Amino acid sequence: MNVSIVGLGLIGGSVARDLRKTHFATHLIGVDANEAHAKEALQIQLVDEILPLTEATSKADLVIIAIPVNRIREILPQVLDQIQPGTTVTDLGSTKQRIVDVVENHPKRRNYIAAHPMSGTENSGPSAALEGLFEGKIAIICDQEKSGPQHLALVEKMFQTLGMNIAYMSADEQDHSTAYISHLPHVVAYALANAAMAKENRHIIFDLASGGFNSTVRLAKSTPSMWGPIFQDNKKYIIESLDTYIKHLKEFKESIQKDEKQMYQLMENATKIREVLGGANPSLIKNEEKIIKLYTK
Amino acid sequence: MNVSIVGLGLIGGSVARDLRKTHFATHLIGVDANEAHAKEALQIQLVDEILPLTEATSKADLVIIAIPVNRIREILPQVLDQIQPGTTVTDLGSTKQRIVDVVENHPKRRNYIAAHPMSGTENSGPSAALEGLFEGKIAIICDQEKSGPQHLALVEKMFQTLGMNIAYMSADEQDHSTAYISHLPHVVAYALANAAMAKENRHIIFDLASGGFNSTVRLAKSTPSMWGPIFQDNKKYIIESLDTYIKHLKEFKESIQKDEKQMYQLMENATKIREVLGGANPSLIKNEEKIIKLYTK
Repeated sequence: MNVSIVGLGLIGGSVARDLRKTHFATHLIGVDANEAHAKEALQIQLVDEILPLTEATSKADLVIIAIPVNRIREILPQVLDQIQPGTTVTDLGSTKQRIVDVVENHPKRRNYIAAHPMSGTENSGPSAALEGLFEGKIAIICDQEKSGPQHLALVEKMFQTLGMNIAYMSADEQDHSTAYISHLPHVVAYALANAAMAKENRHIIFDLASGGFNSTVRLAKSTPSMWGPIFQDNKKYIIESLDTYIKHLKEFKESIQKDEKQMYQLMENATKIREVLGGANPSLIKNEEKIIKLYTK
Repeated sequence: MNVSIVGLGLIGGSVARDLRKTHFATHLIGVDANEAHAKEALQIQLVDEILPLTEATSKADLVIIAIPVNRIREILPQVLDQIQPGTTVTDLGSTKQRIVDVVENHPKRRNYIAAHPMSGTENSGPSAALEGLFEGKIAIICDQEKSGPQHLALVEKMFQTLGMNIAYMSADEQDHSTAYISHLPHVVAYALANAAMAKENRHIIFDLASGGFNSTVRLAKSTPSMWGPIFQDNKKYIIESLDTYIKHLKEFKESIQKDEKQMYQLMENATKIREVLGGANPSLIKNEEKIIKLYTK
């Protein structure tokens, strides 16, 4: 199968690695607006050839779009215009509602699957691409009823080939949940990095930085060109989650100042995250299709 | 050398493992108010025997106190009362000012070294103890001029045996810096866990939880009985750091809502944490004594 990947960064590059390794793709075509990235992707053999978007699109059985969400909105209608009638298109952006909205009435809407594989690292570019990045993680497929069954089947097979479990929900519910589980932690980390760097004598604190600080602030290393558009696209739910978070922070702060008993209650409640996450650890439910059953309509 | 460890949890247990393995300790005596923990520590051979505090203290060449900071304040004066004249005492608590204050005028103040090894995990109890937990990390020694040189030398040798670099500063500066680098990230994580668990349909978001969420919220699994007393002890600087953090969060939130250019500037600034932390990665400076030189008076 000819697979064209638009955007050869961390996500697109990692998909390329696994689809080649598993022979899901027999020929991999890459598209990247950044010429240095395109060249590098070819050199490290993420793809077999680099083509302009129009050619890559018209030659593909499957087009995978893995670029910042604002750019997905711009090119998705063009891609659907240019594909052959039987070609499947998917995108891997972290927000979905504004993307599905731009192709709502496109004549080839049923060729398109709105998807979001929940995996990544704080690194970017073709050299950040990793084999097995998606293994055991969850891919969200949105508004499945708006896609044709053969296109849906192909994208499901692709995610299963990557080792992923699949969850199905509306674009709105995906944006709402992802705000809390992915976008908010990025804001948390960006603000923590800025707060720590604002301290006087900051060289001392960074010399002291230990595992706890490093893991909490890790996401602040994520690239603004990917995350800025996500924050703008999903503004409504990110602001909601931030307001909730700030309320909880203030409550915790006041309990430290004035109410030790309340402070302990808030901490005890927070530690329940251990069992909540433990039970939902994707690596534990892998291949058991628990998630798929939960959300299949 | 006879080493008595008071508190056989994650920290005390991990120190025991390494001091035995390196033959720094020839005989390890354990003390733990929790009988189940004491029994378990003996069973998994963290220590050679369990004794009551008074006996363990009077038989030791070195006493290491690794219990919650409020309990350290309570027992440190007793321990100093009971030791032989040549015995060295250290504690491994995360806050220092309130602890050094209680022994400021103790006749054996010079036998005591106020210390804080910057390492840990979100787990607790004897079974959480790990070999090599401290390797490549930083130990802070506070107010070194108030300790006798032979006692200081022994504790420095112990930390070097654990593979640590040593930083020297006042108890006040340690509490101030540690508020930002360790205590604040714990508050951040506790509040994030509570905010995420407060969301409606929270089962969906936890089924979706991915690496980004898990690493940012990891510290929320930390035990309240250890962290509550730290938050109370270091209230002044933790509130300062929280106020700074909340200010940065609100600024970020407002930039998402109203000022995209500003949002990108804040993100770009935050990503500088990559180079700042990169340059201070303790594993990179190990054995180069860079830290020691920086802070030696």
